[in-house]
Amino acid sequence: MTYRSPLDDYRFIFKHLAKLDEVLALPSYQEFEPDLVDAVLDENAKFVEEVIAPTNWEADQHPPVWENGIVKAAPAFHEPYQQFVESGWQGLGHEQQWGGQGFPSLVVTAAAENLQAGNISFALCPMLTDAVIEALSLVGSDAQKKTYLPSLIQGTWSGTMNLTEPQAGSDLSLVKTRAVKQADGTYRLFGQKIYITYGEHDLAENIIHLVLARTPDAPEGVKGLSLFVVPKYLVNDDGSLGQRNDVWSASIEHKLGIHGSPTSVLLYGDGKGEVGEGAVGTLVGEEGRGLQYMFITMNAARFAVGLQGIGLSERATQKAISFARDRVQSRAVEGSPGPVAIVRHPDVKRMLMTMQALTQASRAIACAAAHARDMGHAHTDPQVRAHQSQVYDFLVPVVKGFSTECSIEVASHGIQVHGGMGFIEETGAAQYYRDARILTIYEGTTAIQANDLVGRKTLRDGAAMARDFFKQMQQTCADLSAMIAKSGTDKQSGLSLIRDRLAEAIACAEAAVSHLLANASDHVRAVYAGSVPYLMLTGYLHGGWHFARAAMACVSAQQAGDKDPILEDKLATAVFYAGSILPRVQSISQGMLADVTVTAALDRASLSA
Amino acid sequence: MTYRSPLDDYRFIFKHLAKLDEVLALPSYQEFEPDLVDAVLDENAKFVEEVIAPTNWEADQHPPVWENGIVKAAPAFHEPYQQFVESGWQGLGHEQQWGGQGFPSLVVTAAAENLQAGNISFALCPMLTDAVIEALSLVGSDAQKKTYLPSLIQGTWSGTMNLTEPQAGSDLSLVKTRAVKQADGTYRLFGQKIYITYGEHDLAENIIHLVLARTPDAPEGVKGLSLFVVPKYLVNDDGSLGQRNDVWSASIEHKLGIHGSPTSVLLYGDGKGEVGEGAVGTLVGEEGRGLQYMFITMNAARFAVGLQGIGLSERATQKAISFARDRVQSRAVEGSPGPVAIVRHPDVKRMLMTMQALTQASRAIACAAAHARDMGHAHTDPQVRAHQSQVYDFLVPVVKGFSTECSIEVASHGIQVHGGMGFIEETGAAQYYRDARILTIYEGTTAIQANDLVGRKTLRDGAAMARDFFKQMQQTCADLSAMIAKSGTDKQSGLSLIRDRLAEAIACAEAAVSHLLANASDHVRAVYAGSVPYLMLTGYLHGGWHFARAAMACVSAQQAGDKDPILEDKLATAVFYAGSILPRVQSISQGMLADVTVTAALDRASLSA
Repeated sequence: MTYRSPLDDYRFIFKHLAKLDEVLALPSYQEFEPDLVDAVLDENAKFVEEVIAPTNWEADQHPPVWENGIVKAAPAFHEPYQQFVESGWQGLGHEQQWGGQGFPSLVVTAAAENLQAGNISFALCPMLTDAVIEALSLVGSDAQKKTYLPSLIQGTWSGTMNLTEPQAGSDLSLVKTRAVKQADGTYRLFGQKIYITYGEHDLAENIIHLVLARTPDAPEGVKGLSLFVVPKYLVNDDGSLGQRNDVWSASIEHKLGIHGSPTSVLLYGDGKGEVGEGAVGTLVGEEGRGLQYMFITMNAARFAVGLQGIGLSERATQKAISFARDRVQSRAVEGSPGPVAIVRHPDVKRMLMTMQALTQASRAIACAAAHARDMGHAHTDPQVRAHQSQVYDFLVPVVKGFSTECSIEVASHGIQVHGGMGFIEETGAAQYYRDARILTIYEGTTAIQANDLVGRKTLRDGAAMARDFFKQMQQTCADLSAMIAKSGTDKQSGLSLIRDRLAEAIACAEAAVSHLLANASDHVRAVYAGSVPYLMLTGYLHGGWHFARAAMACVSAQQAGDKDPILEDKLATAVFYAGSILPRVQSISQGMLADVTVTAALDRASLSA
Repeated sequence: MTYRSPLDDYRFIFKHLAKLDEVLALPSYQEFEPDLVDAVLDENAKFVEEVIAPTNWEADQHPPVWENGIVKAAPAFHEPYQQFVESGWQGLGHEQQWGGQGFPSLVVTAAAENLQAGNISFALCPMLTDAVIEALSLVGSDAQKKTYLPSLIQGTWSGTMNLTEPQAGSDLSLVKTRAVKQADGTYRLFGQKIYITYGEHDLAENIIHLVLARTPDAPEGVKGLSLFVVPKYLVNDDGSLGQRNDVWSASIEHKLGIHGSPTSVLLYGDGKGEVGEGAVGTLVGEEGRGLQYMFITMNAARFAVGLQGIGLSERATQKAISFARDRVQSRAVEGSPGPVAIVRHPDVKRMLMTMQALTQASRAIACAAAHARDMGHAHTDPQVRAHQSQVYDFLVPVVKGFSTECSIEVASHGIQVHGGMGFIEETGAAQYYRDARILTIYEGTTAIQANDLVGRKTLRDGAAMARDFFKQMQQTCADLSAMIAKSGTDKQSGLSLIRDRLAEAIACAEAAVSHLLANASDHVRAVYAGSVPYLMLTGYLHGGWHFARAAMACVSAQQAGDKDPILEDKLATAVFYAGSILPRVQSISQGMLADVTVTAALDRASLSA
């Protein structure tokens, strides 16, 4: 089976849900004609389908190799990476001033998800480069921008984020890496960083590390952290590569998945470079504000990991559907002359629809976030900009947490659809299940996302944003009622189910939010016991809302005479989601409402098991 | 961290839920004094903790090797397998007439789960041997019993089940392997079987294959299938090993998990043995009844796979709890002087409790089934025997399907608790996630179990058994009300939550069962779309019921002055289950109730995605 870029779904979303024409109408984006966007997305689809997607299994089985501090990338990646650079994909969303093309986030989202579906292990390299570009664009000095941005945006250099240390994972206050200021204003770094994605490899000519470290006299905790840029090779004034810096890969990890992506332990200041002892770096912004800068850039990175989840889900779904159409086994439950393709078995259909519905729900939420980002970035009215930026901020932990949690479920169903063959590595379904399992962990675990959603995004504004969404959703219910009245009978029961289930889910979500607000001061542990459930509830609810909007768009289009079969498919997926997925909101809400009682019981027990 | 056998939980269950004294009071089991049972379980715990558990990671990393048709087992297994045989563990539950010890199923369940927790890949070998012993005991001829049972029960020979072929997985009607009758009454077998667990290895002296095959003039479909016993080495009249038979391993599979277990493609009749062309076998029972015999023995095998799920869940849970106690990261959400062990973070606690609660729920259901099996086997009243056998039959697909589906969730949480380290293979948490993924597939996928539960176990008796359970559960709710009235205030809110949530879950389950009955004839596809949901609903509900019973037992014991800390832990876990897990019944039921509408919508779409 071959992977096909899900452009049909993107075009549906761009037309009906997260409207691309609204974004392209903004003055900043008026240079991008719809035809140009279409052509870019077609070209991106072709590149990923033909060049990147075929490397996925290959690089899993022939991963990168570490030898004496040198990491050779997966052999399957060298040629595709060069093509990636030559085609300019790294620069798609970046500033034109530094060589990028400046496309809006909504367009970049489609291309980025596609690249992730092609190969997550490959796409991690440009994804980390994006993060470094984002950070330097926002908080780098003019000199740093001039030195690093053009080559990063070209993709000839790649970037990395160096946060984690053995004792400092989710808790970055425990970071120990030292940065000592030199007479010339540069710093020398000493310490060990772990889990550094593409920390060392030979695809790019230089690697630009962003490193969180502590100056000698800095206070303890997060306020003592500063951010540094440390290149693998120093850069001469003319832009050519200079001395080998003192940062080395000590090893790469033996991981459950994303085998194609080299994950390094990096040693700073081991004394083996051409620069003497200590890795030479320059400070980004001001001392002591490192974590703050990381937070500024974190939204984009978290959003990107969410897209990894969606891309992986898309690909696992396509593979499972393709298998289920070909594999003939057992008669139909309603009777059939002989065995049928398993796609006809109701339980297989249920799994495939669950996969498809979760994938499309995640994608619709991500596009809503990207739309808000573009509006927040480029709308002419500053109040709209401020509000849309808040919408984006609210949705980012949902995109990251929900899409990736869903991808694990989707990949697991994908194996199950394949039966015994799913467990055989060569089939390929198992790889998605392995690869997906990192997505809920890196760039902040689901709990980190969920605590952010509960604390900063919901409690802080007294749930104003959360409830503003509820109001919009209630309007959608009202719109559905109007549509049901004038729909054909074949649509009425489906639309009614969507309306009724959405209304129930909103009520459950309101109860959950009220619970959070009511207990935030007196039962803080109970509130945070429900943080991941709340994040998932929010994801399921928003997904259901977008599907409800999609269903109305389908019926409207059909009423206007449009016979595109995607409309009936989308509508059926929306009905399935309302029937089978959206009720999860109820059970999650019920769980949250019991958290005060449950926490009290747990506090009385030792739980020695 | 070291694995500890969960004997505390078993002893709690044996005392309060699936009562061992009731089983040991049966005449057939009176020879087994409680002290003897205790000693056996202690010895089993020690053996697994010291000998088997340490091989788990080792065999994953140094798996069996295939070379020219010969499979060398994982090096770590040779010595432990000899100890396993010498200690007589293979015979624990088998007939004394053939050298077994004849312990009741409830005791064997504890030992079997423990062995699976120690190492699923290892335990698969005795598990398959058990299946062959079970089959030959029930339907073998006297000569077959005499030839094979003593060595199988000793464990010096092992057994395999040969059902699957490339075109025949869930659908065994498509089996093509041929069995040609010879003049001497034996048969010669020709064909290819795949996914044969321990189909070839060097731990046992001989391997006894049970093979589903088709005689030349047999009708098509399942009625043409017969069952044959085919030994790797023919057995001489004096019991010594004779000629090498014509069955060969063509390869072993490259699998996602259970790396320590060799999964063979077996070729029958390749002409390379010492017996000429065709593997020599003898017919089991009568021609044409092969699948029927397989079904007779299938309950035991499916129950055993359920125990694999529980053992895996137990071990993953222990590992995660141990890590969460040691790993210090971030301050407590309610404030703390410095970072705390992550077990104190509400979200980590939620994951650990989910793992523990699902494990203990699965175990309680399995023990209820084993108790029913013993009663069905050995009760003096034939009516009780008949009823209890039906109880067992109802519960087996739940034990198999629910416990294994839970094990995937549990293992996935186990990785998440470990954060980034969970994704590194050497940590070991990833292995459980890989290993668990086969459990919902082999011995009948979850859908196969669920279709059995819906069709044969629920619709066939008009839901009489399902509703009989509901009645017992309602009685538990009434008992809880009585207890709440006389409990201390610290217990009342927890017990009320348990009662209220159980009552809600029963109501939801009743609605789901009514839906199945109402639509069985007119909407069969909608009914079977809900089969896996119904199986999971049944598991969650029964788990919640047993936890409710456990909670009452804990409070009663405490009221009687028992200060054992396990009582408070069990009670807290029961409250957690009622608060956080049991509401899943609601959302599943809601999903099922929409299936007629959803199926109609899906039938209108092409779902070309």
